[in-house]
Amino acid sequence: MRTRLTERFGVEFPLFAFSHCRDVVAAVTNAGGFGVLGAVAYSAERLDEELTWIDAQVGGRPYGVDVLVPGKIDAAAAAPGARLPDLIPEAHRDFVDHLFRKYGVGAHSGPGEIGAAGAGSPGDADDVGRRVTHEGATRLIDVALKHPIGLIASALGPPPPEMVERARAAGVPVAALVGTVEHAARQVAAGADIIVAQGAEAGGHTGEVSTMVLVPQVVDAVAPVPVLAAGGIADGRQVAAALALGAEGVWCGSVWLTTDEAETPPAVKRKMLAATSRDTVRSRSRTGKPARQLRSAWTEEWDGAPDSPGPLGMPLQLLLAEEAMARVGRAAEAGVPGARELANYFVGQVVGQMNQVKPARQVVYEMIEGYADAVERLRAVTDS
Amino acid sequence: MRTRLTERFGVEFPLFAFSHCRDVVAAVTNAGGFGVLGAVAYSAERLDEELTWIDAQVGGRPYGVDVLVPGKIDAAAAAPGARLPDLIPEAHRDFVDHLFRKYGVGAHSGPGEIGAAGAGSPGDADDVGRRVTHEGATRLIDVALKHPIGLIASALGPPPPEMVERARAAGVPVAALVGTVEHAARQVAAGADIIVAQGAEAGGHTGEVSTMVLVPQVVDAVAPVPVLAAGGIADGRQVAAALALGAEGVWCGSVWLTTDEAETPPAVKRKMLAATSRDTVRSRSRTGKPARQLRSAWTEEWDGAPDSPGPLGMPLQLLLAEEAMARVGRAAEAGVPGARELANYFVGQVVGQMNQVKPARQVVYEMIEGYADAVERLRAVTDS
Repeated sequence: MRTRLTERFGVEFPLFAFSHCRDVVAAVTNAGGFGVLGAVAYSAERLDEELTWIDAQVGGRPYGVDVLVPGKIDAAAAAPGARLPDLIPEAHRDFVDHLFRKYGVGAHSGPGEIGAAGAGSPGDADDVGRRVTHEGATRLIDVALKHPIGLIASALGPPPPEMVERARAAGVPVAALVGTVEHAARQVAAGADIIVAQGAEAGGHTGEVSTMVLVPQVVDAVAPVPVLAAGGIADGRQVAAALALGAEGVWCGSVWLTTDEAETPPAVKRKMLAATSRDTVRSRSRTGKPARQLRSAWTEEWDGAPDSPGPLGMPLQLLLAEEAMARVGRAAEAGVPGARELANYFVGQVVGQMNQVKPARQVVYEMIEGYADAVERLRAVTDS
Repeated sequence: MRTRLTERFGVEFPLFAFSHCRDVVAAVTNAGGFGVLGAVAYSAERLDEELTWIDAQVGGRPYGVDVLVPGKIDAAAAAPGARLPDLIPEAHRDFVDHLFRKYGVGAHSGPGEIGAAGAGSPGDADDVGRRVTHEGATRLIDVALKHPIGLIASALGPPPPEMVERARAAGVPVAALVGTVEHAARQVAAGADIIVAQGAEAGGHTGEVSTMVLVPQVVDAVAPVPVLAAGGIADGRQVAAALALGAEGVWCGSVWLTTDEAETPPAVKRKMLAATSRDTVRSRSRTGKPARQLRSAWTEEWDGAPDSPGPLGMPLQLLLAEEAMARVGRAAEAGVPGARELANYFVGQVVGQMNQVKPARQVVYEMIEGYADAVERLRAVTDS
């Protein structure tokens, strides 16, 4: 395959793989795609270790880093000197305690729990919340730029000027995720080199417009800036569809969560393998902003229970949820049925296609083969 | 273009155009596609007239008819002898009156209003509601089968056995619209010859899974039954994407609403031309079942106002909304600003791409040209 992006990034396939797991990033890069590590899971120190590990694995092949820079965050949390865990209202901590009791997850929820059992989330609670502020994201970017990364991606809001400046100075292109045509134009104006147009079916923070509808409009709006399609892409037919829509490559996140390499908590992985495409929901209950995830007792309670105080904003809800989910994860592994009901994670509607654990490399190869088959089918339809 | 469906239906392009407007149906059929008339807007007698007109226009070229056969309808409405308008609760009529007052639409809403100014909806209110029952749909099918139709399509629920039997006896294939993989399998078991897999971004009654995610799963689940993709398809890139996903053709509804031929009420047409892809909502407020439509004061009030009694089931909400919208339409044409705020209609997220009034024939040709361009691009990516 050959698009402007395969040329620019020196990859065989314009397949960008977003993952919080370094093993997935390295596996996809080594299979001819482009791995992108989600940095928000890590403290600055830990990110440095992860990237050093990746550098050793990929032998100079290209990979990137993704940071979360929300355009708007909770005003109190943005105030200088604020200690984030102190800002979580009593009612919200009480609701989490109530859920723990109701679902048999056990003892009192206090601060300081974060990362104790998480997949690569060490650091104190304040630090975790800070990573999604400009200040925190900039710290992560500084670490990332010390490594030979080929891309910095910015999820949510436009990339902050300091991020664009640092990346430019280092010769690293900036990609920005968008869910609307309006945001795409704003991101290009802010200096994004590549736009990731992400449809509503995507996992994680997502808008309301579907990939099928969004991608062609974004392509037209930002031309000649190249566009990656995201959301709803987990097999080769969907890669071909994305390119038919005018994208020059794809950005996939969900499909890696059930690979061999993924550090997805076992209870969540089992749920994903069993889930259909109807088992996700776009909910504010994990981060404070609408994010698609497995529907679970967690989302149902926060979004539907009469006694729910409603989710907080970003980053406080993220903090509260990460803390709670670390505990839920441990209880789920210990076999607590209620904990398994609560357990969830960000994933797109393609979860319905994720029915088997495979090596990430195999996923890449199957996507490319499926892509070639789809193009062959289109040729036959057109030429006959 | 050549797929099993172009062969089977004797069309140049596997492009199925759903419309309530006979002019659109005839124009698409005459341009080499396949027009499908939505029959629910018509009484049995009027449907007969419309099809007679189409027969005279298309000179033997193929077209079809679509009926609405909901799997579940309001229990009271299904009871024998029930007169539908009598079943609408006072609170719901009162809420409509309140909206009329609030938005300056004028006088009291009584029964018997339906069709007075509607686009092709004559008949009394009871009859209109009945058209979406098995009994009413069967009456429409009997009329349709007297004409040389090439397809009967069933929206919502599986096609009732009597529909399949009558169609088979007449040698007419049956298509069924579905929004989930589970329903697709059920529809095939019920005798559907073709499945229309319709994503959440589609206008009208729609599920929650996007076209990108739904189509490949439905294709795999029902093979070798052919699948049409619906939802999010209004240009040639989207046609190519649909075929890449494994569909053998496309089913489009929204894109015709802003054509020259469409009888879309002028206030609604103007709104559609100005709307972005974020200006639709999936709401029960027009039919009682979730249907995507323009977001308007009507949807906002029913779905969000504290004093809203909430929508009724199908067909009572349909009846109430059609009645109200006939009046709103007249007031909007008379220049009442509040009526323009209330005015809406079913449309998919592709409304953001519908920015110009064109002849339906031109839409068909542009889609085919855009399709060919997209396939050419894919070839270049793959062969280089």
